[in-house]
Amino acid sequence: MRRPTIMDIAKAAGVSKGAVSYALNGRPGVSESTRERILTIANDLGWAPSNPARALAPGGRVGAIGMVVDRPARSLGIEPFFMQLVSGVETELSDQGVDLMLQVAEDVEAELAVYRRWAAERRVDGVVMVDLRVSDPRPEMMGVLPLPAVLLGGPEGAGGLPCLYTDDGVPMREVVHYLAAMGHRRIVRVAGPEDFVHTHSRTEAFRQAAERSGLLQARTVHADYTGEAGSRTTRRLLAEAEPPTALVYDNDLMALAGLGVAAEMGIEVPSQLSIVAWDDSALCQMVRPSLTAVSRDVVSHGRRVASMLNAVLTGQRVESEETLPGELRPRGSTGPLVV
Amino acid sequence: MRRPTIMDIAKAAGVSKGAVSYALNGRPGVSESTRERILTIANDLGWAPSNPARALAPGGRVGAIGMVVDRPARSLGIEPFFMQLVSGVETELSDQGVDLMLQVAEDVEAELAVYRRWAAERRVDGVVMVDLRVSDPRPEMMGVLPLPAVLLGGPEGAGGLPCLYTDDGVPMREVVHYLAAMGHRRIVRVAGPEDFVHTHSRTEAFRQAAERSGLLQARTVHADYTGEAGSRTTRRLLAEAEPPTALVYDNDLMALAGLGVAAEMGIEVPSQLSIVAWDDSALCQMVRPSLTAVSRDVVSHGRRVASMLNAVLTGQRVESEETLPGELRPRGSTGPLVV
Repeated sequence: MRRPTIMDIAKAAGVSKGAVSYALNGRPGVSESTRERILTIANDLGWAPSNPARALAPGGRVGAIGMVVDRPARSLGIEPFFMQLVSGVETELSDQGVDLMLQVAEDVEAELAVYRRWAAERRVDGVVMVDLRVSDPRPEMMGVLPLPAVLLGGPEGAGGLPCLYTDDGVPMREVVHYLAAMGHRRIVRVAGPEDFVHTHSRTEAFRQAAERSGLLQARTVHADYTGEAGSRTTRRLLAEAEPPTALVYDNDLMALAGLGVAAEMGIEVPSQLSIVAWDDSALCQMVRPSLTAVSRDVVSHGRRVASMLNAVLTGQRVESEETLPGELRPRGSTGPLVV
Repeated sequence: MRRPTIMDIAKAAGVSKGAVSYALNGRPGVSESTRERILTIANDLGWAPSNPARALAPGGRVGAIGMVVDRPARSLGIEPFFMQLVSGVETELSDQGVDLMLQVAEDVEAELAVYRRWAAERRVDGVVMVDLRVSDPRPEMMGVLPLPAVLLGGPEGAGGLPCLYTDDGVPMREVVHYLAAMGHRRIVRVAGPEDFVHTHSRTEAFRQAAERSGLLQARTVHADYTGEAGSRTTRRLLAEAEPPTALVYDNDLMALAGLGVAAEMGIEVPSQLSIVAWDDSALCQMVRPSLTAVSRDVVSHGRRVASMLNAVLTGQRVESEETLPGELRPRGSTGPLVV
């Protein structure tokens, strides 16, 4: 029930503690055959260098990276995006024997406190940050903390942090032109929280594309990514005197909730209402009608951002990178208006 | 950009390195006023004891606990159960300043390798285990590894591990009697993988309840919790010569997929087919008709199991505990058969 020590190996091999130390550290002082015998015994006993001891060695790494997500714990369980990202990061890390430290924080202040603690206590070698905000205090703080970071998001507002970013303008224009081509004029986008940088850039792209298509009634309203907010917002929009004929949601959960509200109000999708989800997921394909969605490979983004952080940690110079733009996947929830 | 050292504090305070060490470790050798001044400066500089150093002290804890999930990374993103559990564990841990180490493993062998590595390298103080299998090698291994563990599941097959377990028999009987009372005779349960202990105990409870209600055609078929398997299995069942009139799914994703297949095949829910999900989630409430489900407070289970592990780590004697049984939440997807 206790960890094997160098003394245990010495006893089992019938050699001195010093000889075991020479053998394990690859230093001269023992013959090649003794070294091999000691290593075999160490392995049989399940011995490994203690991570705390290794981390204290000069230039030693802790062998873990951290991620903090500041979303309410209960909504985390049903938000596919974040867990897909974690899966991708995890896949890359376990290939390298690096662990992932995960923390949930209530807000950006709590998130900053976690980074300060991790840096001070040397819990992780570096962090992957997500959900960049307008006037986000994190990039500036990461510049002074001894904690390397890479960002999924930006590049606007990323400070000097290496980031993996996406141009949402490309798929947003595709969505708007597609809906306009099918005759939709009253298009409303149900967006995520206003203070996220990616929400902001999607809003700008949506506004410009709508303007260019002459959609004067197109507008963006904000919700918080939860199904509850998605339902409430959709119900309010569909109860307007001139309700929208097409809704574009910033995540899959809200789109799913919107589809439920349409059914509940007896509004047929897509003949009376078209629905587009952003961030495709298996959920979008499971419901009927299946949801037209903008698809990104979130798992791959997770892998890539983890490998960028690893490059930073091994002292390489890392440039920011742009991912492939999201792609529109038309399914059963969009179509021409039937009047 | 680097962590403050004891030398930095000594310089800023104009005292020796030894004096700083006395002050920080609460040992005699410095006056009370000097101690206070040193602590203030240490705090201003953002100094904290390095976690690797603290962990090496006698009786020191690493301050992290671990969880391994052996599900394919891509399905993790849309499985609400596991992330709800992680959220609950996280909430309890962050109250105590303990970190959560997360790993995804491909199978139980890979999971065991992670535990061995964590124990050998002293990465975590203990682990929370889930998804107990029939003839699971983990409880026995945990008995010989220097890595305390608690289990969500059991108590059957849990070895000597403290566990937090649920009696699925209570809600299962409730589900079967409810469906039988509405006239359903051909009830099929679409279960999770056969080798999970909780799948097995639900199967047994389902069989007994069906037998007692005289439902000779009731049976269980197995799938793997993914939406894809839920769709495929449902399509096959509904294409039978005498298709089931009620389906009970072992998770919410498969139930959601089943609802989609019914819509696709023109089978009306609930007048022609009743659907019950196990493990309620916001998803069940979002779709139309909303899904009748067996509800458990997974977030609370996560909190509780984390606090049991913490008790083990502080040397307390911890007994296994039973949670409240799941509750049936009838919604729009169940009703009497309309012939």
